[in-house]
Amino acid sequence: MSTAEDTAGEDMPWGEVTPEAARKLLVAAVEAFAESGYHATTTRDIAGRAGMSPAALYIHYKTKEELLHRISRIGHDKALEILSAADAGGGTPSDRLADAVRSFVRWHAGRHDTAHVVQYEIDALSDDHRTEILELRRRSDAVVRGILRDGVETGEFDVPDVAGTTVAVLSLCIDVARWFNVRGARTPDEVGALYADLVLRMVAARK
Amino acid sequence: MSTAEDTAGEDMPWGEVTPEAARKLLVAAVEAFAESGYHATTTRDIAGRAGMSPAALYIHYKTKEELLHRISRIGHDKALEILSAADAGGGTPSDRLADAVRSFVRWHAGRHDTAHVVQYEIDALSDDHRTEILELRRRSDAVVRGILRDGVETGEFDVPDVAGTTVAVLSLCIDVARWFNVRGARTPDEVGALYADLVLRMVAARK
Repeated sequence: MSTAEDTAGEDMPWGEVTPEAARKLLVAAVEAFAESGYHATTTRDIAGRAGMSPAALYIHYKTKEELLHRISRIGHDKALEILSAADAGGGTPSDRLADAVRSFVRWHAGRHDTAHVVQYEIDALSDDHRTEILELRRRSDAVVRGILRDGVETGEFDVPDVAGTTVAVLSLCIDVARWFNVRGARTPDEVGALYADLVLRMVAARK
Repeated sequence: MSTAEDTAGEDMPWGEVTPEAARKLLVAAVEAFAESGYHATTTRDIAGRAGMSPAALYIHYKTKEELLHRISRIGHDKALEILSAADAGGGTPSDRLADAVRSFVRWHAGRHDTAHVVQYEIDALSDDHRTEILELRRRSDAVVRGILRDGVETGEFDVPDVAGTTVAVLSLCIDVARWFNVRGARTPDEVGALYADLVLRMVAARK
């Protein structure tokens, strides 16, 4: 399941993680969690996938939960960064919303293993870590909600339920990580373009 | 995690499964798979949750995969039934699409544990069972695609990409199973009504 992680999105997956051994372990953990689920994966499985001993893993990560937290934190930081960059990119609310959807979809399609782990294993985090991650998620939600509000204020959007529509827009993008198939008919860019159009229709954006 | 399963949707979850011991085991399996994932769950866990011995479980299900297949089969049959009923309900393409979305969303919100297992553990099925389930899924997709095509033909919908929009509509409904919270602000009916409106906007239905 690692193909998409390695080829789509960025040059070097988890390039922000150093040293190299810690990065390889994180890549291995994402693969293992995506394939078997967090609970069925052992630190021994992860070390084995990375070609290391369990003892070598413990130098970098004390627990399996620490690996999950690191993955979730980087994934949610990235999600917030993507949405904030689209929002800060300027232009009309329609421009910013379309840009946010395009880039958020591309990330979920290209990094679908990571996205799946990040979105689905939240319950497995410790209480403190879950609180931290849910706060990041609230900030991501707030970016999209802010764009929708701006569009309503300028009269560009017709959105009777801003909070509910925000949930729907983000949900549509996030679920790409479930169904996207690297061998399927569409590229991440094509899905991003389609979804940007569908979301502008959802908010009834003036063309 | 069984609360929503027990209270929303139908009177008796998995009422179609008999005898009662087989039904209780299926309910226990859904809870366990939803909580820990298929791979981390043992038949011993499932028997224990149902208050039975592992030997009693084997009278009804030979393998853990047989339980997953049974859950997936019933879940996908139900999904197809819901969408087909909406399609057969008559009215304009807009009426049928709105009805399909409302009832599909209600099911995913009310039975979110089941929906999660059904949608996410497809890779854990045997090859034959996976083929069978994917065929059911294709038939569900075809129902929605057919409604969109009808609406395009009558001029009621403006949908440049019928296949892609079908994926998006179903994905939006399915992902309700991930984020829906029984203690959240919205009831399954409210989410269904919001989503029916959003989907009609996606297809640019004439009001």
